[in-house]
Amino acid sequence: MTQNIYDNDAFFSGYSKLPRSVEGLDGAPEWPNLRAMLPAMSGLRVVDLGCGFGWFCRWAREAGAASVLGLDVSENMLARARETTTDKAIVYKRADLERLALPAASFDLVYSSLTLHYLENLGALFGEAHRALVPGGRLVFSAEHPIYTAPTKPAWSEDKTWPLDRYLEEGPRSTDWLAKGVIKQHRTIGSYLTLLLEAGFTLTHLEEWGPTDQQIAAHPEWAGERQRPPFLLVSARR
Amino acid sequence: MTQNIYDNDAFFSGYSKLPRSVEGLDGAPEWPNLRAMLPAMSGLRVVDLGCGFGWFCRWAREAGAASVLGLDVSENMLARARETTTDKAIVYKRADLERLALPAASFDLVYSSLTLHYLENLGALFGEAHRALVPGGRLVFSAEHPIYTAPTKPAWSEDKTWPLDRYLEEGPRSTDWLAKGVIKQHRTIGSYLTLLLEAGFTLTHLEEWGPTDQQIAAHPEWAGERQRPPFLLVSARR
Repeated sequence: MTQNIYDNDAFFSGYSKLPRSVEGLDGAPEWPNLRAMLPAMSGLRVVDLGCGFGWFCRWAREAGAASVLGLDVSENMLARARETTTDKAIVYKRADLERLALPAASFDLVYSSLTLHYLENLGALFGEAHRALVPGGRLVFSAEHPIYTAPTKPAWSEDKTWPLDRYLEEGPRSTDWLAKGVIKQHRTIGSYLTLLLEAGFTLTHLEEWGPTDQQIAAHPEWAGERQRPPFLLVSARR
Repeated sequence: MTQNIYDNDAFFSGYSKLPRSVEGLDGAPEWPNLRAMLPAMSGLRVVDLGCGFGWFCRWAREAGAASVLGLDVSENMLARARETTTDKAIVYKRADLERLALPAASFDLVYSSLTLHYLENLGALFGEAHRALVPGGRLVFSAEHPIYTAPTKPAWSEDKTWPLDRYLEEGPRSTDWLAKGVIKQHRTIGSYLTLLLEAGFTLTHLEEWGPTDQQIAAHPEWAGERQRPPFLLVSARR
């Protein structure tokens, strides 16, 4: 099973204070781009892989989704997600995304935000997502960009360049982000796409996210994110 | 019109001495991967965008292609390509790939090796390639990887990392490779794929090429290419 770092107290405490945890989707700078990749939500049956505090699940219902299943491995996050809603059409469930089993052809949208880079066996998950979608259904996800996850030392150099190495060496990376020893699974864009196509999906959009000029004006500390994109945004169709 | 650096004498002289110029396809370490992405060649009508000395055109005919049209902007390269064959089914023509006009639905395969990163207007070329292919026809190309083209200083740092910056800043990059002031057009993987999908193609494979262990054993100087891939290999279907 994938490391469940969100149930590590130090990590959870730090994560809970991030803008995206406090402000929700509006605190996530890549959200406008990800939202633009989503289909019209009206009437859709949605599953959110790695739902965290449930911000997206609640947004999806407000945007007209018929039902939303929020899955996460973290009891901490699910407990907080459940406290935020009384909507019976949102169901939160604990799930190990490495061993997911969903009912076949029963969803219109599979969504996942910044979760897939924790998974070792992404091919199996894409296969399950494909099986769970109806024909024509959509998969929309974000993940940490491989340029961001690859390096031995993922921190800016003194000359303000990003010291890329080990890009083609896929596998675990241990970083100290909010807690010591957070394990991410580095894989290339080529691998993300190959796994997606092998699962039977058709690629519809791929975006390497960086902040807009307007976002940098509001958050000058984000300027570096244009030097090397932090997130990969992908949409595909069953 | 795109810079025609191949008709610069110093560049052409240097380029002519590269292993891929002297040994042909076998001197190009990414060729086995690119070849694996090609359809069976028997009976195909092929166009090669940026054919250079014509190594691929001759290979395609030997592999069974019905006809091969080799296009290049460089008179130097076309002159040498024409000297190497008497095969009437191979035609070499000068063409500015920024303003290409091909007969509609008249090719089964559009191929391009390490040429597209010189073009400013890639969207128009993808559109023309789509129009020139029959339904079900294939586009297979390689280009310099955006990680390779992005940096202000595209050279290894002392700590053997690749100093990535300006990844999301698309546009011209001037480098001194074989000659001073060679202009390449940097664009992200996201842009390559968006232009491809917008032209109507379906992505079938994407690979970020680096040398195998066996290739590194034979060429230890290539080890760095695994730290940051030098080439992007893509196949798509009309």
